Amino acid sequence: MDNKILIAKVGGKIIDDKVKLTAFLKDFAAIDYPKILIHGGGNIATKLSEKMNIPTDLVDGRRITSDENLEVVTMVYAGLINKKISAQLQAFNCNAMGLSGCDANCITAFKRIANPIDFGWVGDVEKINTTSIQLLIENKITPVFSAICHDRKGQLLNTNADTITAEIAIAMSEKYNSTVVYCFEKQGVLKNINEEDSVLENIDFVTYKALKSDGIINQGMLPKLENSFHALRNKVSQVKIGNQHILGKVENQHTTITL
Amino acid sequence: MDNKILIAKVGGKIIDDKVKLTAFLKDFAAIDYPKILIHGGGNIATKLSEKMNIPTDLVDGRRITSDENLEVVTMVYAGLINKKISAQLQAFNCNAMGLSGCDANCITAFKRIANPIDFGWVGDVEKINTTSIQLLIENKITPVFSAICHDRKGQLLNTNADTITAEIAIAMSEKYNSTVVYCFEKQGVLKNINEEDSVLENIDFVTYKALKSDGIINQGMLPKLENSFHALRNKVSQVKIGNQHILGKVENQHTTITL
Repeated sequence: MDNKILIAKVGGKIIDDKVKLTAFLKDFAAIDYPKILIHGGGNIATKLSEKMNIPTDLVDGRRITSDENLEVVTMVYAGLINKKISAQLQAFNCNAMGLSGCDANCITAFKRIANPIDFGWVGDVEKINTTSIQLLIENKITPVFSAICHDRKGQLLNTNADTITAEIAIAMSEKYNSTVVYCFEKQGVLKNINEEDSVLENIDFVTYKALKSDGIINQGMLPKLENSFHALRNKVSQVKIGNQHILGKVENQHTTITL
Repeated sequence: MDNKILIAKVGGKIIDDKVKLTAFLKDFAAIDYPKILIHGGGNIATKLSEKMNIPTDLVDGRRITSDENLEVVTMVYAGLINKKISAQLQAFNCNAMGLSGCDANCITAFKRIANPIDFGWVGDVEKINTTSIQLLIENKITPVFSAICHDRKGQLLNTNADTITAEIAIAMSEKYNSTVVYCFEKQGVLKNINEEDSVLENIDFVTYKALKSDGIINQGMLPKLENSFHALRNKVSQVKIGNQHILGKVENQHTTITL
C-alpha cells in the first residue's frame, strides 16, 4: 500500500501562539500527499468563557459541557479557530476546507452516559464517514476538523480532538497508509516535565506501562498515548508526537510511539 | 435549461426564533433538487458583543467590523449558527455541509476601501468558486454558507449575506436555472411596515423606484431589493421574498420581484 495519508492534530499552546501556529501550518501546507488536520483550542474557549462569566469545569482534562459551554466551544472551535486556520492554509496554497463532525455527516457521536460523571454535551465517536472525507481528498481538498460532532438528531456534541484524530486515522487506514502526528508545545513526551530536552525518542507499550506506573508521564499526556496505541493496534502505520516543527524538512526531535 | 437550483437565504429574526427556524429548515430539507443555503445572524452577534462589552456600530445596516467584531461574527456566524443549522438539516435527512467563504476557497472578497466610511474588516465579493460548490452539489451535499469570506492572503472578511446569496445565484446560473428566496420574519415586502398583511405581491423595477422615492420601503429592505434586481439582470430566473413558510407545500403569501 503506497498511498500515504497524513492525519495531523494541532493543539495545546500552539493554537494560542500565532508564530508557532503559522510555522506549523506552513509545513503542513507543504505536504504534497493527502492530508487531514484536526485542531483543538481549549485555552481560547476557557478565556472566552471567563469573559462571558461562564464557569469552566475540567475533570481529568475533559471539559464538562453545559448548554452555555457547548455554545462557547462551538463558537471557538468550529468558528474562530477553524476559519482562521482554513483562511491561513488557503494563503499557503493548501485548498483547506474547515469542517465539523456534523458537516456532510463526517463524524457522528453518542452523548456520553452520565455515569459516574455527567459530562453534559460531551460525545464519544460513533462513526467516521469516510465516503465524504474521501470525496474531498480525491478532489485535492484538505479537510480541517474541529472536534464538534453531532448525534444525527440535531444535537451538537463536544468530542475530544485527540480521539477524533485516532478514529479518523483508523477509518482512513482501510484505504491508505496512515501516519498520525500529534503537535503541541513540547518537543515530544518528556521524561522530566521541567526539562524541555528530556524527550523520550521512542515509547513502546511496555515502556508506556512502566512510565505510567512510575508517574513519569503527566495526566494530560495519558489520553494522547492511549489514543496512539489504539491507532497502532488498528492498522495505523506510524504515530509521532512533537512540536510545531514536527512536519519540517529538517528532522526535528520528537517521540515515536510503537507497539 | 431544466436543471433547477434553489439558493435560499435565511436571516432577520428567524435565526433567533427556534420554532420559526425549524419550520423553515424542515421545508428547505424537503426540497428534492439541488439547493444552497446562506444564513445571517446579526442579532445574535450583537447580543454576544454586548455580553463581551464590545461596541456594535451599524451604518446603513452594515456592521463596522473591528478586530474584536470580526472575532465575534466569525464565532457566531461561522461557528454557532452554521453548525446548529448543519446539524439540524442532517436530522431532517438533508446532507448539509456548513461552510464559510474561506473553505475550499468558495468565496473570495476584497476588503472594502475605507472611504468615505471605514467599515473595518468588511469585504465585498470578488469571486464565487463554482467548481468547489458544484462538486458538493453533484455529490448530493447541500452547502450551507455563513457570510465570512477571505481575501486569499489569510484575512477573514465580514461580507453581506444578502449580497453573497445574489452572487452565488448569479454564478450558479451559468449551469443551472436559479431561483433565489430571501426568508425573513415578514410575509414579504410590506406597503405599510405596521400592517403585517399589507404584502406587495409583485414588485418590478418601476414600482421599486416609485416606492423608494415615496419612502414606502424601509432602509433594511433596500439592499435586499437592490440585490434582487442585480440577480435578475444577471440570468437568475426568479426572486421571492417571504417568511419561514415560503418553501412550504401550501403556497404562502410572499413578494415576487421581477424586472
